[in-house]
Amino acid sequence: MIKHKFDEDKAHPNCAVVGVFGHEKASLVTYYALHALQHRGQEAAGIVSIYDEIEKNRKRYAYTRDEGLVLDVFSDPKLFDEVLIGDSAIGHNRYSTTGSSSKANIQPFPMIYHNGILAVAHNGNLTNTISLRKKLQEEGAIFQTTTDTELFLHLIARSKEPNKIDQIKEALRIARGAYSLCMLIEDALIIARDPHGVRPMNIGRIKLENGKYAYIAASETCAFDIVDAEYVRSVKHNEIVVIDRNTLETGEMQSFNIIADTPIARHCIFEYIYFSRPDSYIFGHSVDKVRRKLGKNLGIESPVIPSDGNKATVISVPDSGNTATLGFARKNADSHPTVFEIGLIRSHYIGRTFIAPGQESRNFKVKAKFNPVRGIIEGRNVVIVDDSIVRGTTTKSLIKIIRACNPKEIHCRITSPPIKFPCFYGMDFPSKKELIANDYNDEFGIGQAIGVDSLHYLSEEALLESVPHDEGIDYCTACFTGNYPIPVEQISKTDTE
Amino acid sequence: MIKHKFDEDKAHPNCAVVGVFGHEKASLVTYYALHALQHRGQEAAGIVSIYDEIEKNRKRYAYTRDEGLVLDVFSDPKLFDEVLIGDSAIGHNRYSTTGSSSKANIQPFPMIYHNGILAVAHNGNLTNTISLRKKLQEEGAIFQTTTDTELFLHLIARSKEPNKIDQIKEALRIARGAYSLCMLIEDALIIARDPHGVRPMNIGRIKLENGKYAYIAASETCAFDIVDAEYVRSVKHNEIVVIDRNTLETGEMQSFNIIADTPIARHCIFEYIYFSRPDSYIFGHSVDKVRRKLGKNLGIESPVIPSDGNKATVISVPDSGNTATLGFARKNADSHPTVFEIGLIRSHYIGRTFIAPGQESRNFKVKAKFNPVRGIIEGRNVVIVDDSIVRGTTTKSLIKIIRACNPKEIHCRITSPPIKFPCFYGMDFPSKKELIANDYNDEFGIGQAIGVDSLHYLSEEALLESVPHDEGIDYCTACFTGNYPIPVEQISKTDTE
Amino acid sequence: MIKHKFDEDKAHPNCAVVGVFGHEKASLVTYYALHALQHRGQEAAGIVSIYDEIEKNRKRYAYTRDEGLVLDVFSDPKLFDEVLIGDSAIGHNRYSTTGSSSKANIQPFPMIYHNGILAVAHNGNLTNTISLRKKLQEEGAIFQTTTDTELFLHLIARSKEPNKIDQIKEALRIARGAYSLCMLIEDALIIARDPHGVRPMNIGRIKLENGKYAYIAASETCAFDIVDAEYVRSVKHNEIVVIDRNTLETGEMQSFNIIADTPIARHCIFEYIYFSRPDSYIFGHSVDKVRRKLGKNLGIESPVIPSDGNKATVISVPDSGNTATLGFARKNADSHPTVFEIGLIRSHYIGRTFIAPGQESRNFKVKAKFNPVRGIIEGRNVVIVDDSIVRGTTTKSLIKIIRACNPKEIHCRITSPPIKFPCFYGMDFPSKKELIANDYNDEFGIGQAIGVDSLHYLSEEALLESVPHDEGIDYCTACFTGNYPIPVEQISKTDTE
Amino acid sequence: MIKHKFDEDKAHPNCAVVGVFGHEKASLVTYYALHALQHRGQEAAGIVSIYDEIEKNRKRYAYTRDEGLVLDVFSDPKLFDEVLIGDSAIGHNRYSTTGSSSKANIQPFPMIYHNGILAVAHNGNLTNTISLRKKLQEEGAIFQTTTDTELFLHLIARSKEPNKIDQIKEALRIARGAYSLCMLIEDALIIARDPHGVRPMNIGRIKLENGKYAYIAASETCAFDIVDAEYVRSVKHNEIVVIDRNTLETGEMQSFNIIADTPIARHCIFEYIYFSRPDSYIFGHSVDKVRRKLGKNLGIESPVIPSDGNKATVISVPDSGNTATLGFARKNADSHPTVFEIGLIRSHYIGRTFIAPGQESRNFKVKAKFNPVRGIIEGRNVVIVDDSIVRGTTTKSLIKIIRACNPKEIHCRITSPPIKFPCFYGMDFPSKKELIANDYNDEFGIGQAIGVDSLHYLSEEALLESVPHDEGIDYCTACFTGNYPIPVEQISKTDTE
Repeated sequence: MIKHKFDEDKAHPNCAVVGVFGHEKASLVTYYALHALQHRGQEAAGIVSIYDEIEKNRKRYAYTRDEGLVLDVFSDPKLFDEVLIGDSAIGHNRYSTTGSSSKANIQPFPMIYHNGILAVAHNGNLTNTISLRKKLQEEGAIFQTTTDTELFLHLIARSKEPNKIDQIKEALRIARGAYSLCMLIEDALIIARDPHGVRPMNIGRIKLENGKYAYIAASETCAFDIVDAEYVRSVKHNEIVVIDRNTLETGEMQSFNIIADTPIARHCIFEYIYFSRPDSYIFGHSVDKVRRKLGKNLGIESPVIPSDGNKATVISVPDSGNTATLGFARKNADSHPTVFEIGLIRSHYIGRTFIAPGQESRNFKVKAKFNPVRGIIEGRNVVIVDDSIVRGTTTKSLIKIIRACNPKEIHCRITSPPIKFPCFYGMDFPSKKELIANDYNDEFGIGQAIGVDSLHYLSEEALLESVPHDEGIDYCTACFTGNYPIPVEQISKTDTE
Repeated sequence: MIKHKFDEDKAHPNCAVVGVFGHEKASLVTYYALHALQHRGQEAAGIVSIYDEIEKNRKRYAYTRDEGLVLDVFSDPKLFDEVLIGDSAIGHNRYSTTGSSSKANIQPFPMIYHNGILAVAHNGNLTNTISLRKKLQEEGAIFQTTTDTELFLHLIARSKEPNKIDQIKEALRIARGAYSLCMLIEDALIIARDPHGVRPMNIGRIKLENGKYAYIAASETCAFDIVDAEYVRSVKHNEIVVIDRNTLETGEMQSFNIIADTPIARHCIFEYIYFSRPDSYIFGHSVDKVRRKLGKNLGIESPVIPSDGNKATVISVPDSGNTATLGFARKNADSHPTVFEIGLIRSHYIGRTFIAPGQESRNFKVKAKFNPVRGIIEGRNVVIVDDSIVRGTTTKSLIKIIRACNPKEIHCRITSPPIKFPCFYGMDFPSKKELIANDYNDEFGIGQAIGVDSLHYLSEEALLESVPHDEGIDYCTACFTGNYPIPVEQISKTDTE
Repeated sequence: MIKHKFDEDKAHPNCAVVGVFGHEKASLVTYYALHALQHRGQEAAGIVSIYDEIEKNRKRYAYTRDEGLVLDVFSDPKLFDEVLIGDSAIGHNRYSTTGSSSKANIQPFPMIYHNGILAVAHNGNLTNTISLRKKLQEEGAIFQTTTDTELFLHLIARSKEPNKIDQIKEALRIARGAYSLCMLIEDALIIARDPHGVRPMNIGRIKLENGKYAYIAASETCAFDIVDAEYVRSVKHNEIVVIDRNTLETGEMQSFNIIADTPIARHCIFEYIYFSRPDSYIFGHSVDKVRRKLGKNLGIESPVIPSDGNKATVISVPDSGNTATLGFARKNADSHPTVFEIGLIRSHYIGRTFIAPGQESRNFKVKAKFNPVRGIIEGRNVVIVDDSIVRGTTTKSLIKIIRACNPKEIHCRITSPPIKFPCFYGMDFPSKKELIANDYNDEFGIGQAIGVDSLHYLSEEALLESVPHDEGIDYCTACFTGNYPIPVEQISKTDTE
Repeated sequence: MIKHKFDEDKAHPNCAVVGVFGHEKASLVTYYALHALQHRGQEAAGIVSIYDEIEKNRKRYAYTRDEGLVLDVFSDPKLFDEVLIGDSAIGHNRYSTTGSSSKANIQPFPMIYHNGILAVAHNGNLTNTISLRKKLQEEGAIFQTTTDTELFLHLIARSKEPNKIDQIKEALRIARGAYSLCMLIEDALIIARDPHGVRPMNIGRIKLENGKYAYIAASETCAFDIVDAEYVRSVKHNEIVVIDRNTLETGEMQSFNIIADTPIARHCIFEYIYFSRPDSYIFGHSVDKVRRKLGKNLGIESPVIPSDGNKATVISVPDSGNTATLGFARKNADSHPTVFEIGLIRSHYIGRTFIAPGQESRNFKVKAKFNPVRGIIEGRNVVIVDDSIVRGTTTKSLIKIIRACNPKEIHCRITSPPIKFPCFYGMDFPSKKELIANDYNDEFGIGQAIGVDSLHYLSEEALLESVPHDEGIDYCTACFTGNYPIPVEQISKTDTE
């Protein structure tokens, strides 16, 4: 059976991680949390739990990992009662950026080594993978996967440090790049963000019937909502947090720095623009609020005033663009009569497989996902607001579909600057030459290519003005600017020039 | 593996039907159309095609039917090239109302009888099933399914009429109730709606490369959009339409009445309120426009003016309520400062299976589907607009989730009257006593039960005012009024009293 | 996944039937019995049971049917406890002779008709299928399968007789051909053999813990051994036996004739030669004894005296030929020094699927099934004894494999006459022109074609001398003689001339 | 689905290995060979092939491994054309002796290390696993399986030797115990047997159309027959053989000793008694001949002379005991009138799963596999000859089944001495206390326990007299004597005392 993945022509976030500690249904809680984070990776999912094998007085681990959505991988409820037992677990949703899509690459990765059990789940991308892997292989290491994540296991297993926490610290100092991690050992859940804190990671807690708390860590806080967890705080960049049995009693967590001098953070600005769910808090702030502001600033910078003077009908590309679109529509109304409408109906049933043989396949796929409401578009001056354009293929198809409903004008507004550079920290963009923004000199050219009457992107200045600026926090905007805050080992010419 | 169906606590439409004639990829077109109609039935899907077995100079049929979503049942592209061949096909999405959910009951049903091949796909519900089935069994008929649809096959096979069209006419005259049908025979696609025309059915055509047209029939026109078909017209109530080889040449379709005197039509008003997709035309009108008007009329009848005088924040239950909510919000703004917001994020990944053991399972399920955006709700006067309340269980959970975000007030507005009676024409409502509207004397009681500060339904008068009134057309409103326009053979006391 | 069936180039028996009545684990007993009868049909298997739905005070049926071996179709033990419940059941192993190999054709067939439940399992082949089917279709019957077996259901459902036993009698009188049947109704198991009794059918009983007996019917008695059942008797030709609640109490079974005047029986002689297992009793006699006698008579008719005067090494084609081979070897020893050896090792693991692409595929398949023991064959005068030759393809491959071990001579002896005519009573032979015996004038020609130094078949006289001759019993030898004892509706020229 | 493995109560051989080099369909040849060796391991199977990735000018490996029989694991023919490509491959049938039955433990194991690709398939059992594993883990090795086989990979990857052959030599010198190995690298197939040569391993060659030869290695020569390979020789104990591109041209293979001084070989004598197929050559000799001699010597030592003076009816337990039984029967005829008969019919359809709930489950299982031919047993003096008794459970059931056919006497003869000790070199026996021979003082006691009139085992002297005695070759008879020729690291008291 040949399956065609529906390619949304969006930047793809690489993965979600979850950790749960001190909850008698740890794997079930992890499962719910992974489901809430499904948007961060739909390729595969896995959970590792650690439990007591009482008769032998030792700890063991169990795992379930497979390709597919969370609901499919864990469709058998017996898994939680009979396999993934124990009061601690970590989980992972995968969208592959490094490593082939082989089953061996599905996280979390557990191992048994001379100090016992350790399992890891990783969101992000290392930048010194090639040299590290080469060095370890020369020392006799055997790699079972093609992922960068496996490096953590080998670095820890080879560390001469006497205890696991120190082994982990040593390993994290050697690895470079973007990583938000959940690691599970016999008696602790260890959470970490790389020194620049590219990807988000949050800590929450769940009140138990006995009045104590279980702890949960997750890439975004929408995972806390589904399990009624209370948000505690964001993990800081350059921070390792240890949640252990003592934490369950006292609420205190140990915190360590990875490297001695904490650098300025470089949060991924695209997490705010598109990756994270609007109902999440990341890096300590509401995604919805940031996204609303992106829309408003775009409305200030590039309002739409139709040439016939009639009202502007603003529609969003559901559902990722909804919030920013509302922001844009309100601000546009300051310049000109404007109405927000639901002009595209999104199918709830589009899955990972959709058969569409032949040349017209992309159009078919887009039509299978979005259908316009003719009555809203016909004869109107339509403004379509979206968060980003990558290759431009989906946008082009969408504009074609809207155009078939006979609007007067179609204007397009994008709540981020043109994407011109690949990401080496965990986003899955196509190569430089596939990015439509590199094919044209300016917005006008791109707009003509996708078939709209006008196109405007948000400026870099307005983008940076829209996001929060806490002390010590800055952003990675490499996909727009090409300025990579963390050195990358190997960037081929085709990637960046 | 135990699967729990996610029960949305909505009225469930019973099925979609599709027919394609004269297209070399008839089954593929049917597949796309079924996918667009997935909202009308997610339990099972099937396609029957008729093709030429050239070496034997005869026609044969092929079929694929299974439980699951359209994309899953037909996930192997080879099906269309190697199995479901031929230039005509009919398809069906199933939501079971009659018959158990056994695999034998998945439509379309093909048969070979003394006149050759005939296959049928049916949307609706017959009302004289019990007596018809008994009579046929006494004559020696063997039933292979527990559906009412199989009756059509036996009635046709036993007819003494000399040709298939007359056999079909005779069969449709004997059957009573609600039926929109696609029937496929060797050389024609036959489409019909019952004398009262309860369920919709539409005819479209697809321009081929040679300049001629293939024909398509479907429950809703959103199925036409996905295959670039042009809308031709709605099938009339009491009408049988025959599309045959001559139609392909001339564009002419034969049309027959089922019974001699065409009665006043009784369109299902709930198709406008909830069943059909807003981007569809049914009964000749745009669903979106009707739904917008429902919202507006509700805004006129029952505007929300928060007790503290602050602005009203109107949010919809995505996605079915979006259009009506926009209509309500605009009209409410006439009475009071009002803002429309995206306050609930709907998961795109919720499938038919979701494991949620234990007492809190419904809440978990609702939370897995909808997550509120706290920043929009906290401290606001929230108005939630939805299309209907059935048992009230989902609504109750939803209100609880919203309440946890600390709004000041929560008001609820419903764009239809209270549902008090079961449907015998194809909608799947629970029994009378499970309907929350029968548990309380008035809106106030229901509102208290679901936990809102105020609740108002749309009145029957406003409902009827919102829908189109073409000549000879009236509506079935039995679920609100208990007035059943077509006699029902057996209604138990528990059902209606 | 493409599966290639391993074609043994043998005549294939068409199916096994089993019935169990009065046993609290009726379906489990049926399952064991079907497993013991697996050699009679490996394509598909099914069981229907009838149980009490106590809360509604009525009987219901349950079934499981699928393609595959018995062990695979019923691999889930919960089936017997949760699905196939009740104290009566019938089962079927299928080897398709009529009807395509579609899943719809897997027996037993249950139906609900105006008199309640009736299920049927059939071994044999009807000879007036075409005219019966046509007549029934003209009366409005809808056929769900392409089997002859379904005719029984329609004939019963249309009978005007007042009770089920009389309806069954009427139906069996209308059907012509070969049938051994198990039918299950709410309160009885009905077993029958056609008036000529072509296929076997036996009755046994199982002693229960309470001292009473449950009853079992099966195609061969090896099915009784596996469930510790005691052999009661063979069903007579032209007999219907009814086992009901009264039988459980008193041990008495009702017996009826199908047609008034019982004709001479025409037992299938091939059941003794090849079909049945040697450990079974059929038609009241031990298959092993008959097969031994076939070997002995062949040893008398056509002994092997190697040209060099050295001893003859007799080997069998395991396992079907073992018994007859031993008989031959002993008798041959009367003429000449002779030794019986295990010269071919049969793989236990050859299944229904074996991939062997390319031209040499048959040789590969034969080699995958049989490997010679070189030490036994090299330099010897080998006699290979087998029960029959159909196309000759497998025999040819086998001789080639043996020849590669460098024997001095290879002689072949067959314990039946040449097969020259197709069977219309349930055996699956290829068409006349595919039978190797029709390609050559005499044994010499066939022997040269398959590559042996001498070939002799058993004569018809010696064959008939080898089988039991009870009063009123004769044999069908049509496959050797072309004399068909039951008229066949349509025999095309290619079949018989 | 719960599957119950049919436990034959036999010693289970641990695995088959196969290697193919220089054949354009290397994986297909490996597949056929594995099928022929299915009797050595039915739990799981796998193939690794190495192929040229031409566009990148490098070698890659592909693999398929899964639980199930060879025919099932490789049921898709496309595997051989599209996945397991390349002209070299190794394969493995698994019967687990060490390691749990987890999927991760299915061989062959491929790895990529600093010198490239290396894959290993292993038959046997290491005896210094625990200490080796501990040492490697302390050095930072991460184990992915719980098998001893993985040790080879880590030892090779950590070796400081400059080339692969030397790395392999070093690794084999460190490992202790029983191993017959196939290893595949980019340009060679490396085959080895441990210094004592406990398990067999053979080299063959296949003539290609161009006149050259491809090479094949396999545990037994029956694997050569199925692919028309010619037997070249047995790998010697303490020998490493390298088959590379040069071998394909010249026919020359490099050969190395593992340790400097080659010890006396210690072939597993049980390979002759039961493990290997009778049509194989192992250790350079025909298994069939040895097994025949075992039967003859048993007939000399312990003939059966029934107490009533009537003839002895000798039957075998098909199929493993057939050859030895024939030998016994012939020799017994020297003492007394004796006839060999097929008294037990073995089902061809018994698979890995057979449901038999309840107390009588073992009897059911044995009956499902073997059914007696009553006519041969009733009233006779039956001698049943088998190769070994392990727990005695199956034998007991079998005797019970035979007894039910009312023989006069049942005598049992076993063609090996009593099994009293576990095997640490790759056979899967139960623990000491489960072995029936340890429960009784003598044959008489065991015979009474299994219910026979007399029981005799072959003596150790006669066993050793029956097997070939080439120069430098002796046998491991530890299972009979407790004398373990290779030191075993950890033998618990319960295992050996």
